[in-house]
Amino acid sequence: MIKIATAQIDVIPGNIRENWKQIEKEIQRAREKGAHMLVLPEMCLTGYLIGDLWDQNAFLRECEAYNKKIAAASRDITILWGSCAIDWEKTNDDGRPRKYNAAFAAAGGHFLIPENGRHPFVIKTLLPNYRCFDDRRYFTSLRQEALEEGLSLEEALTPFLLPAGSETIRTGVLLCEDSWDENYSLSPMSILAKKDISLFLNLSASPFTLGKNEKRHRMLGDALSKLHIPMIYVNQRGLQNNGKTCYTFDGMTAAYDKEGTLIAEARPYEEPRCLFLFHRDSGNLMSEKPMAPFQGRMLLPALRYGVRKFLSAIHVGKVVIGVSGGIDSAVNAALYRSVLPKDHLLLVNTPTRFNSEMTKDLARKLADHLESPYLTIPIGSFIDETARALEGLPVGKEKIHLTGFMKENMQARDRSSRILSALSAAFGGIFTCNANKTEMTVGYGTLYGDLAGALAATADLWKYQIYELGRALNEWYGQEVIPKGIFTVKPSAELSENQDVTKGLGDPLIYEYHDYLLKSFVEPWQRNTPEDILAWYREGTLEEHLGCSVKVKDLFPTHAAFIQDLERWWNLFAGFAVAKRIQAPPLIAISRRPYGYDLRESQAGPYYTDRYLEMKEEMLKVVKGS
Amino acid sequence: MIKIATAQIDVIPGNIRENWKQIEKEIQRAREKGAHMLVLPEMCLTGYLIGDLWDQNAFLRECEAYNKKIAAASRDITILWGSCAIDWEKTNDDGRPRKYNAAFAAAGGHFLIPENGRHPFVIKTLLPNYRCFDDRRYFTSLRQEALEEGLSLEEALTPFLLPAGSETIRTGVLLCEDSWDENYSLSPMSILAKKDISLFLNLSASPFTLGKNEKRHRMLGDALSKLHIPMIYVNQRGLQNNGKTCYTFDGMTAAYDKEGTLIAEARPYEEPRCLFLFHRDSGNLMSEKPMAPFQGRMLLPALRYGVRKFLSAIHVGKVVIGVSGGIDSAVNAALYRSVLPKDHLLLVNTPTRFNSEMTKDLARKLADHLESPYLTIPIGSFIDETARALEGLPVGKEKIHLTGFMKENMQARDRSSRILSALSAAFGGIFTCNANKTEMTVGYGTLYGDLAGALAATADLWKYQIYELGRALNEWYGQEVIPKGIFTVKPSAELSENQDVTKGLGDPLIYEYHDYLLKSFVEPWQRNTPEDILAWYREGTLEEHLGCSVKVKDLFPTHAAFIQDLERWWNLFAGFAVAKRIQAPPLIAISRRPYGYDLRESQAGPYYTDRYLEMKEEMLKVVKGS
Repeated sequence: MIKIATAQIDVIPGNIRENWKQIEKEIQRAREKGAHMLVLPEMCLTGYLIGDLWDQNAFLRECEAYNKKIAAASRDITILWGSCAIDWEKTNDDGRPRKYNAAFAAAGGHFLIPENGRHPFVIKTLLPNYRCFDDRRYFTSLRQEALEEGLSLEEALTPFLLPAGSETIRTGVLLCEDSWDENYSLSPMSILAKKDISLFLNLSASPFTLGKNEKRHRMLGDALSKLHIPMIYVNQRGLQNNGKTCYTFDGMTAAYDKEGTLIAEARPYEEPRCLFLFHRDSGNLMSEKPMAPFQGRMLLPALRYGVRKFLSAIHVGKVVIGVSGGIDSAVNAALYRSVLPKDHLLLVNTPTRFNSEMTKDLARKLADHLESPYLTIPIGSFIDETARALEGLPVGKEKIHLTGFMKENMQARDRSSRILSALSAAFGGIFTCNANKTEMTVGYGTLYGDLAGALAATADLWKYQIYELGRALNEWYGQEVIPKGIFTVKPSAELSENQDVTKGLGDPLIYEYHDYLLKSFVEPWQRNTPEDILAWYREGTLEEHLGCSVKVKDLFPTHAAFIQDLERWWNLFAGFAVAKRIQAPPLIAISRRPYGYDLRESQAGPYYTDRYLEMKEEMLKVVKGS
Repeated sequence: MIKIATAQIDVIPGNIRENWKQIEKEIQRAREKGAHMLVLPEMCLTGYLIGDLWDQNAFLRECEAYNKKIAAASRDITILWGSCAIDWEKTNDDGRPRKYNAAFAAAGGHFLIPENGRHPFVIKTLLPNYRCFDDRRYFTSLRQEALEEGLSLEEALTPFLLPAGSETIRTGVLLCEDSWDENYSLSPMSILAKKDISLFLNLSASPFTLGKNEKRHRMLGDALSKLHIPMIYVNQRGLQNNGKTCYTFDGMTAAYDKEGTLIAEARPYEEPRCLFLFHRDSGNLMSEKPMAPFQGRMLLPALRYGVRKFLSAIHVGKVVIGVSGGIDSAVNAALYRSVLPKDHLLLVNTPTRFNSEMTKDLARKLADHLESPYLTIPIGSFIDETARALEGLPVGKEKIHLTGFMKENMQARDRSSRILSALSAAFGGIFTCNANKTEMTVGYGTLYGDLAGALAATADLWKYQIYELGRALNEWYGQEVIPKGIFTVKPSAELSENQDVTKGLGDPLIYEYHDYLLKSFVEPWQRNTPEDILAWYREGTLEEHLGCSVKVKDLFPTHAAFIQDLERWWNLFAGFAVAKRIQAPPLIAISRRPYGYDLRESQAGPYYTDRYLEMKEEMLKVVKGS
């Protein structure tokens, strides 16, 4: 039996030295366990989402030096790891030194060379260049390398023969996307499968999104069952970001048998290391200890991990949260509290006369349940004073006049930029942005106000997911830390009389419909626009396409009302909301299309296609005619 | 003589219908001028920097429909234009419908097909995927297409035979990067040159940066002089953005004769259309009217154009600027005033006791010169009141205490988030962020304070370029609208006694050195890190490498002092400043490495390589030993 250890390193992006320290320990542990081989994830020295650090030559040299350290540490054990390979003699298409996203193997203190290989490493074949992925910005693919060398991919893609004690395994080494080949014209797995290999090893740096792992199990299950080859999948753990968008890496190292069945899986974000037993001749693969595939829900674990890691990455241990008594701030408070000691969280309520006793009570009750310090700082007098200072100031022939709407935004800015900013500095921490994705999508929030903060932990959650997270948190605490009243109160900004929750007034969004409408603008692989929406509405299939349970006819009595609503939100989504998102805080990704660096946006303004305008005209004409 | 008209359309990104209206007029004008052919820029229907609009199928269908409209308009004239071509039967590697960045030609109402072509368009061969460019995210290249079809590029890249009256020209049609082939392993121009063509036509969407056009002239001059083929280059005008980063497109349509000499050039950002005369047999190319190559400086024209276009794109005509009496806000005020009527600009001074009479006078003098409305709104009492409200509030066993540094940031936030935000809303416009690149690089500015605003027009200018722009503005106005005192006063935030300009106190940055140090972290193609800096310092070549005129030894008496300063700014640049840049406003690019979408950053924290740490240890040891 060959013993294969894996270590899903908790990668610190950009910090080669710290990652090496973890790797060094894992090599030692694997040796102590009697493992013949240690498998590490893709880009385990540098991290994967590190922006343009790749154009610092000093960083590349450091990476090379530490690759050598890993190789040197391969006495008595075979090590397989993902890292950057640099060819200083060649260039990428951008003229910079040529870089490969590569898998290295070493044994006996020396780098190994793949069969018929021209380099002491395997080059990633499929370089993803969509969503948050910029692999082609930084790396040259095996496809291009083969083309330049006049080789077919069948020639270029060869097995890695890895010594394991007295035996040798012919392995097919894949880097992440190499196994996600559905949309490509070639399949690295199929090519390697023809080369008499007995095991696939997939080294990944695969950011978590909801549903991703289920998809992976389906996809690899299908592929492996056809190829009859087992696979060990090793993924990074950690939090990495592209500035605006932070991704959790869930680890979840897994083993699939040769029928493609998932037989072992590490729990998300946990279990640093696993040990697998592999019988080369039979192709039998099993884990040393039982590792039942994970069955739970990922939303809460992903966000708790993301928040904890974000705070530790910026070396901050204290957090101030403005709590209004509404669901968004309550969920954020409970979320942060779940990773912080009670005294490291400060909850602040900043009421004006527009805040109801009901929500103020709910906010206090929440703070009581979370056992964190709580302050009430009324801000009405400040707003009035600012208004008095500005109202009537002469500007040319005009005078400054502040409308009610302007005063609403003043309240929001006063809360964040005056109170929470100063308090969090004095408290020695950050303050949070509690926005959700629905608000972010239409810019329902105030810049430098409720859209401010060091992290918008829940800004990739639609409103319905905020409630889901709230329920998951209460379950996690084993009690209703978020009071029931917060789940049932009408969502409202409480910035004016028109948003009085005690009269059932509040946000202009009908979440049961708009959550799904807006999601269809953002998340499908081919994103929808008013043209698609109106066509579905006209043919009566809109609810089905959006996946919402309300009937659109019940919400909008006429075509004109439907169209007016559609254009209102489209104009905001593609208009002012983009400007707001440009200056919004970073968020933690849970969807396949978070804002920031994943959905890349231009401040271009809304556009309506000719077909949309024609349909609209027809529909409004029909109504007028009828 | 063949008459070739060009139109450097003022492209509105994402707005196919409006761009078509311009194109339609240009076709009519070209016809009226008796032109045989009209050449339009790359991506002239859709715009080039439009983020992920490419994954809206409705947008793709609209693009196709308007391509057909252009073709249909080609009665009595040949039209060549850049646009997106879609193959709905195939996919890109991301699984979405296949898109090509393409050049179409039409005559007699029909699309033309290149020689031996398989499509009625030419496909861009070289897809840039660096800096702000994401071509490989969206488009399939001719390289990949040829590979799939089993063709060599020599076979795939063929001339476009374009009818011109009674004649036909064999042209080599290139899309932007196809002519910037220095770093690629192949040269589309060289391949096409072997196919008996008599004219190159380069259709571009090439964002302006300082020095880019000089480089283009050098590069094309070299290439064309070897190939002995003339070229017409047609570029977009307009302002396009990738969210954080706005790029001006300077047009500057140009003609190069067969010796590679630039013989005609449109003035930057102007001259919508040109007319060239081409003699096919001799290869003689000339412009109908004299168009002397542009000799002036681009900095001011680029920024004036950028500001004007940005405001018109967001439909805003009024601007509020906080003016401190310092150079950054003065330059911004003069810049905006140069594109706005005097009553559309509101200048606001918001002093505390830390603001000197000198700077307050300078601010007022600036406003007088610009003849715009001016308000003075002291904010000291507000800061005091906020401090009183927060100081001593109980948090667990502690009490809130605001330090002097915290109160500095409170001033900055009070100015922007309380005063300027409300004033600009009431004034019916936006307020500006007046930051420069030096500040942005090290985060010397306050979030939601001086780093707030709708646009940071000068945030891609190092401090020395701010002064340069100030001088250019005074020249443009023909008088010292920016008073001399503003050029000579010590740069200072005036937020405390320690920044008293009347005592010569101010910013902690030594701009004559730090401008160049920080630039070397950001702008070189291979970016520098402390390792490179310290190595140059040790060998005495730092000033030479940085291009600064001060002597480092005069600034730092010891190695320890030099290293301490280096690490201070590196820690900020790679640390907290990244967090600030994530939430900073959009800027107008003038360099080859603006922040935002061009230099892509991860919030990862500073890193020091082993080699840096070793050098540092050695150098500090030597000092101790000596």
